[in-house]
Amino acid sequence: LVSGSVPYKGTLLRAHSSHPLDPLSPAEIAVAVATVRAAGATPEVRDGMRFIEIVLNEPEKHVVALADAYFFPPFQPSLYAEAKGGPVTLKQLPPRQARLIVYNKNTNETIVWLVELTEVHAVARGGHHRGRVLSSQCVPDVQPPMDAVEYAECEATVKAFAPFKEAMKKRGIDDMELVMVDPWCVGYYGEEDSPKRRLAKPLIFCRTESGCPMENGYARPVEGIHVVVDMQHMRIIEFEDRKLIPLPPPDPLRNYTAANSRGGVDRTDLKPLQIIQPEGPSFRVKGYAVEWQKWSFRIGFTPREGLVIHCVAYDDGSRGRRSVAHRLSFVEMVVPYGDPQEPHYRKNAFDAGEDGLGKNAHSLKRGCDCLGLIKYFDAHFTNFNGGVETIENCVCLHEEDFGILWKHQDWRSGHAEVRRSRRLSASFFCTVANYEYGFFWHFYQDGKIEAEVKLTGILSLGALSPDESRKYGTVIAPGLYAPIHQHFFVARLNMAVDSKPGESCNQVVEVDVKVEKPGPGNIHNNAFYAESTLLESELKAMRDCNPLSARHWIVRNTRSVNRTGQLTGYKLVPGSNCLPLAGQEAKFLRRAAFLKHNLWVTQYDKDEIFPAGEFPNQNPRVGEGLPTWVQKDRKLEETDVVLWYIFGVTHIPRLEDWPVMPVERIGFTLMPHGFFNCSPAVDVPPSYPSADGTNKNCSSECHLQSKL
Amino acid sequence: LVSGSVPYKGTLLRAHSSHPLDPLSPAEIAVAVATVRAAGATPEVRDGMRFIEIVLNEPEKHVVALADAYFFPPFQPSLYAEAKGGPVTLKQLPPRQARLIVYNKNTNETIVWLVELTEVHAVARGGHHRGRVLSSQCVPDVQPPMDAVEYAECEATVKAFAPFKEAMKKRGIDDMELVMVDPWCVGYYGEEDSPKRRLAKPLIFCRTESGCPMENGYARPVEGIHVVVDMQHMRIIEFEDRKLIPLPPPDPLRNYTAANSRGGVDRTDLKPLQIIQPEGPSFRVKGYAVEWQKWSFRIGFTPREGLVIHCVAYDDGSRGRRSVAHRLSFVEMVVPYGDPQEPHYRKNAFDAGEDGLGKNAHSLKRGCDCLGLIKYFDAHFTNFNGGVETIENCVCLHEEDFGILWKHQDWRSGHAEVRRSRRLSASFFCTVANYEYGFFWHFYQDGKIEAEVKLTGILSLGALSPDESRKYGTVIAPGLYAPIHQHFFVARLNMAVDSKPGESCNQVVEVDVKVEKPGPGNIHNNAFYAESTLLESELKAMRDCNPLSARHWIVRNTRSVNRTGQLTGYKLVPGSNCLPLAGQEAKFLRRAAFLKHNLWVTQYDKDEIFPAGEFPNQNPRVGEGLPTWVQKDRKLEETDVVLWYIFGVTHIPRLEDWPVMPVERIGFTLMPHGFFNCSPAVDVPPSYPSADGTNKNCSSECHLQSKL
Ligand SMILES: [Co+2]
Ligand SMILES: [Co+2]
Repeated sequence: LVSGSVPYKGTLLRAHSSHPLDPLSPAEIAVAVATVRAAGATPEVRDGMRFIEIVLNEPEKHVVALADAYFFPPFQPSLYAEAKGGPVTLKQLPPRQARLIVYNKNTNETIVWLVELTEVHAVARGGHHRGRVLSSQCVPDVQPPMDAVEYAECEATVKAFAPFKEAMKKRGIDDMELVMVDPWCVGYYGEEDSPKRRLAKPLIFCRTESGCPMENGYARPVEGIHVVVDMQHMRIIEFEDRKLIPLPPPDPLRNYTAANSRGGVDRTDLKPLQIIQPEGPSFRVKGYAVEWQKWSFRIGFTPREGLVIHCVAYDDGSRGRRSVAHRLSFVEMVVPYGDPQEPHYRKNAFDAGEDGLGKNAHSLKRGCDCLGLIKYFDAHFTNFNGGVETIENCVCLHEEDFGILWKHQDWRSGHAEVRRSRRLSASFFCTVANYEYGFFWHFYQDGKIEAEVKLTGILSLGALSPDESRKYGTVIAPGLYAPIHQHFFVARLNMAVDSKPGESCNQVVEVDVKVEKPGPGNIHNNAFYAESTLLESELKAMRDCNPLSARHWIVRNTRSVNRTGQLTGYKLVPGSNCLPLAGQEAKFLRRAAFLKHNLWVTQYDKDEIFPAGEFPNQNPRVGEGLPTWVQKDRKLEETDVVLWYIFGVTHIPRLEDWPVMPVERIGFTLMPHGFFNCSPAVDVPPSYPSADGTNKNCSSECHLQSKL
Repeated sequence: LVSGSVPYKGTLLRAHSSHPLDPLSPAEIAVAVATVRAAGATPEVRDGMRFIEIVLNEPEKHVVALADAYFFPPFQPSLYAEAKGGPVTLKQLPPRQARLIVYNKNTNETIVWLVELTEVHAVARGGHHRGRVLSSQCVPDVQPPMDAVEYAECEATVKAFAPFKEAMKKRGIDDMELVMVDPWCVGYYGEEDSPKRRLAKPLIFCRTESGCPMENGYARPVEGIHVVVDMQHMRIIEFEDRKLIPLPPPDPLRNYTAANSRGGVDRTDLKPLQIIQPEGPSFRVKGYAVEWQKWSFRIGFTPREGLVIHCVAYDDGSRGRRSVAHRLSFVEMVVPYGDPQEPHYRKNAFDAGEDGLGKNAHSLKRGCDCLGLIKYFDAHFTNFNGGVETIENCVCLHEEDFGILWKHQDWRSGHAEVRRSRRLSASFFCTVANYEYGFFWHFYQDGKIEAEVKLTGILSLGALSPDESRKYGTVIAPGLYAPIHQHFFVARLNMAVDSKPGESCNQVVEVDVKVEKPGPGNIHNNAFYAESTLLESELKAMRDCNPLSARHWIVRNTRSVNRTGQLTGYKLVPGSNCLPLAGQEAKFLRRAAFLKHNLWVTQYDKDEIFPAGEFPNQNPRVGEGLPTWVQKDRKLEETDVVLWYIFGVTHIPRLEDWPVMPVERIGFTLMPHGFFNCSPAVDVPPSYPSADGTNKNCSSECHLQSKL
């Protein structure tokens, strides 16, 4: 196990090898790839193998329960499933498994491999695994996600294509170094997009100055050139110079670094601000396990989703370590554009399923991306050719002061009690072409979990004639146009409220606040009340937000009660949200039918992870994934539930979003609702007042004052 | 001028006396009160005077323009109104005026006084003012807000009332020290609530342990006792022991300090977190004027509103100091409860108009309420008897790191540009009885202004029989019940987008995103677009939120354009919001009819500040204030506009909100929309990466990495 040294004092965990939920180590990845390679039937098959994704094949939940008993001694016996046959030890854990998606470039086949990894030597002796193929299955009629290597090859292919060079010359461009080719997946609009071929439809841009790699080339979209690339054979199969739209003039405001041609000067009056934790962070990390302020969870990471949060629990004193969620992650996102014209109507990136949020994650930098005392986790992948690659400092874990947690000042005595809020954030950032997304999970001392997405990066632009404007977007600069679009995110929440791993005693109720009818019981007409409706089965659990009724959803345990006798629960509180503004018959909604509702609830099924199905790229099947699964209409009255919360923002571009969009935030909250008997934040200690702007925890009351 | 010494280097402002918008100084308050007292016609009148509120009578806008020219030399000449007759000097400013609301306890009259304050000596020689009454006007048929002194007297009166003591004895309470009487305004439910009498209807609570003042007494509501107090004569005019509901048992979880009977132990594993600004803050303060990161504004404060933000402008390079808003504040809030029974149906506090957000503000403590380098402002008031009172450290001004401001990582080179966001926050906190509210105005480097309300404090409870539950709320503990309620806030935004003070060239458009109809121009059915509708007049400008259409409102200047030729604007982006869930005919909506829409727009009128009218307490008139003003249906096509944004949250109490509710946040954003030609955050300098979690600004690119 390569990752994370552990500089924190005191750990609850025993020295150990991998936990069953730990992401695959580089050694495991290497062995798995070698095992698959060796299993290729012919040299041609082996030669054609391209490694799109490799992930830990997550174990059955009872294995997690077993492992927790081993790794987490304070875990309450009542909270994990019983182990049959004597004491629970590591030896009882089954071997780990890797799951690989391999694209065969020679045969255009997509094959899913399952490899068992047996630990031959202990980690202490260098760690060594042996792999064994458990299964390999060819998945017909799909295209797996695109890889960065293919994108680079595609760009080179287009730039070397003589008719393309000719078309650029017609537009005044001789220097092909200036040209940027951003391949986009084609989606599925008809038989010509069938996964029988692996296709990309690149967008073309062109910088203005040679030798200036940080010039913002997205400021000069090249319009009118139709290119379709066969990504399997890496050759251009359609090319047409359809319309000679002049390149927009260089926008003097296109750049975003002072060093580059912006020519401006950065502001100089920003004084440094430091976050100092002289006694270290309040969290403890052992391997991928995190403990902080009564919270515990595990960090996971996959090429598709990026950060995964496993096994979220809260230490509730005499009630022990109480489970909240089994697995939390972002499993898909879709960015549909509202312009019906070429090339914009094709823009509706499935950034997880067509590209990979985790594969495109950043290596973060302390002091720039993150402030305070940071624990970083690395992420390990295969590259396209099967080599092991590591993104260092990929997941950031750190604490933040978050303002006032609670306060009350007694009006009779003037005495104030105030507590500051500390939160723990686990996050990563990724780039998909021009856009950036940051995904954050914040844990709070009052039992809240907040999921937050930060949107930034560069707008996807089109070129206009100098005096043209267009109904479907905003003119950003002369000849530059940003079409309107939406960003949708799908959070998959396998909740486990007061549930042992593998138990099935959660349900979901929808709560709406209703106006009481007038009558003798309501003579002042002021009455309203909350009404709960059980979501009984999957087809009844396709729901939309309704701010006017304060609608939210509570996941509750059917067998666990709080001190008032109400079922213990966690509620999903929507943030701002919307639904697709495209027509109901929009072509991209064939693949993204899950966008038609904000909430879906399903019975847990290990294989139901991706709401558009595992392979949305060029997917010809209508409503694959979530909309199909719920047709089973499984019962939800008492089960292991998965909530799919889908939230979006409608982005009408502003001039101020250019050249880089300031961060927009969107998200939702999981809040305890009768889970605890009172506020779990009541025992957060007060802080000292201080003259120097610092704060210290103390047990006496605040009584000093000072003033600048 | 007493407030704020100025420890920051470099100021743009000349040494000066009061700015015309500075809050009244203690000296001015004392002179104004003395002037009014002396003007009382008879000893009886003078004796009866109680001073409810005193505020600066804000000057006409052309005076502000004059003053800015004097106080703010870099202010662009083109942005202020022309001064007649030669150079602008302080001598040309008219004398300041105080406006007082005086309640005559002998006659039950409410009188508004206007007093002119002439500076006799310069501040440098000790400052001395002379007052002169400009007008005094008796306002018929109103009751001014309640005062803390009256609340204390009311409590004492009730506790001394023999039948009340008898009733408490019946409930097992002999020790009147334990009893808490929280007077609530009666509202207006019929002729018996008429302002001919000054009334309160107290809620009764009872602690369990003597000598324990920090015990949370709100945990034992005393039900069944009907009391109405004549607050003018401070006597009980109605008393009835209606129903002997047993006192709820002492709730073992009622307390929130470890020192008190909670008996618990605070958590000990929270390590200190310090925010250090070794070179000082990035803001500069002179008197009440603030400059920070191209922003400038002035701090104001009133007893009713608390913090007021005046004269918000942004320094936009060659375009000079561009105005954004003239005056921003919270002018009212209403908290209607959803239980139709006694005493809850009467609970619908107008915390600004019945009590005063500013009057009830906290004195803040560095390190507890606020972290970092703080500049505090004091607030000065009269007390009930006309004495000058000061809340020290009442308004907090400080900077915060706010995560990533913008980022882009080039996928070809791997080069990342990232900037951190710094924000400046001006805020205050107040207590109204059991609840706490914090009001925050955040200024960002990307031109955004965010208004945020933080809700915390103690739930308003009722008692139930041990096994009773009630449709209209949540059982919080055995015998304890928290009714459902809503919190509504009214922000009054006198915008001035690219407008000189007093100019009238703003308008408001509503933007909705619409689905395009299918057709030959939309063959893939993906199209949608933003549609703008001018709000032409006041009756057409009563609008509600609509998240499904991404509805927002843009205040734009009718004569100023950005580089694409679009009108410059600022948009109001709603946060989560709702409307009243009471019936349309609810009694409290007589006084709070402005809650029926989320947005109202009016032509600026200096006298239209409070949406329920100036005196909502016991107000018998239906729809006074905003709903009445808009009946004039004034034109809004090109004028000086005031936006009234009304936002609320529906609060279904949770067990976790007890004994003190963890902070909930709600608010909205003002965002530049085509106001700038590109992102104003593009020139924020990058930060150094660092090994110790600090960050420093730098001009070179990030290239170091380190790891825990
Ligand atoms: Co966008
Ligand atoms: Co509330």
